[in-house]
Amino acid sequence: MRFTTERRLDDGVLEREFTLGEVPGILWTPTSAPAPLILLGHPGGLHKMYSRLVTRARHAAAEGFATATIELPGSGERPGSAVAEQARADLRRALAAGEPVTDDVVDRLILPLVDQSVPEWRALLDALLALPEIGGPVGYAGGVISIGVRLAVVEPRIVAAGLFAGSYVPRAILEEARQVTIPLHVLLQWDDEGNDRQVALDLFDAFGSKEKTLHANMGGHTGVPHFAGDDANRFFQRHLRQPAAFTNWSV
Amino acid sequence: MRFTTERRLDDGVLEREFTLGEVPGILWTPTSAPAPLILLGHPGGLHKMYSRLVTRARHAAAEGFATATIELPGSGERPGSAVAEQARADLRRALAAGEPVTDDVVDRLILPLVDQSVPEWRALLDALLALPEIGGPVGYAGGVISIGVRLAVVEPRIVAAGLFAGSYVPRAILEEARQVTIPLHVLLQWDDEGNDRQVALDLFDAFGSKEKTLHANMGGHTGVPHFAGDDANRFFQRHLRQPAAFTNWSV
Repeated sequence: MRFTTERRLDDGVLEREFTLGEVPGILWTPTSAPAPLILLGHPGGLHKMYSRLVTRARHAAAEGFATATIELPGSGERPGSAVAEQARADLRRALAAGEPVTDDVVDRLILPLVDQSVPEWRALLDALLALPEIGGPVGYAGGVISIGVRLAVVEPRIVAAGLFAGSYVPRAILEEARQVTIPLHVLLQWDDEGNDRQVALDLFDAFGSKEKTLHANMGGHTGVPHFAGDDANRFFQRHLRQPAAFTNWSV
Repeated sequence: MRFTTERRLDDGVLEREFTLGEVPGILWTPTSAPAPLILLGHPGGLHKMYSRLVTRARHAAAEGFATATIELPGSGERPGSAVAEQARADLRRALAAGEPVTDDVVDRLILPLVDQSVPEWRALLDALLALPEIGGPVGYAGGVISIGVRLAVVEPRIVAAGLFAGSYVPRAILEEARQVTIPLHVLLQWDDEGNDRQVALDLFDAFGSKEKTLHANMGGHTGVPHFAGDDANRFFQRHLRQPAAFTNWSV
């Protein structure tokens, strides 16, 4: 891991860009250290996503969390694969024609991305947890939800995940979801036109976790309400800082 | 409205039992006044439900809210109707036989309850809002969800509702839900054996409200996690105290 830039934001958060092998990324650390860490998932394109990512990073830093993210394979300046390019073209064609997006297209779009990026996120964890300012435990927050599912299954250092159900989900990932046992906070935009609501509900149902919460809101794909971000932060406060408390509140 | 008992709980909350005409009820007021009001819905049986109700009342009073509830028709010491008794018997028979609960049984069970109790809750509002210690605005929280839906449609003084999707919902109520426009916070126990999850999701989808949030959790019908109660309180803080803020938090 090689840091390439460093600047202090006005709220005291230290922002450092880095490269990990060929993969660019950004690390934000609060003034308090060592800090628990939240990996920030996103749909690809660090520059395009920057303003949303830094908003989430500042929000998390205000609660004492460090955050980090890396570029996805085939996004930003990272080379794409012929398979992914073809899948993206097939997806665009289906959407333009108003046709259903087939399982085959979703598989070709998402599964290679998961296979390639998950080892990269794990290598990022190795590098970050070697830094004195990062203390663990670790959470994963955001999309691509399939990457979050795979990470939750294979990476024992991730103890809680806040997943954004905003992308296509391969059938194989629905099966993997049954193996997830860590606490989950799943965010679904109920009226997200570019997302299959039923698949998101099936995915939530499939998770093996004893504690899993679904928060569905209105506002479209990018219109997640501010209070939903607060709820997600409280989820991480519970799980990266203190044990969960359950009491009977119903009726 | 006639107060029949009065006692001060150890946290300073004033608990008063009352009768409104023939209908018994309980009012809890915090030390700060005038207080905004939350009507506490429940499935019927004030004595049986008391410990859960007073827990919610104390929780709300700690946030500065007054709370009140009344007995449902046919529950506790209130006389039942032949129609309701027959519907309950039919429901028990279907459940015991492992048969599906038909729309007809649900209609006979719930619709007369809604028709009779909604005017009673509105009369309660008239009486409470005449008290100097109650300041409005007003929220409704809990079940029976069909009562909450009808109240949200017909009672303009209710500006926000936290609904517990834990009971049968007639098809007619699904239609009424389209007319609801106030902010909603809907709580669903995902693994509630005694509840039809799909109907709850259909109901959430049907609501006409621009701001509606679904929180689904594990733990069975009575196992609502403590943090879900905190989330509901924050919902009422936003809507009974200050305007909602929306910002873009997604990815």
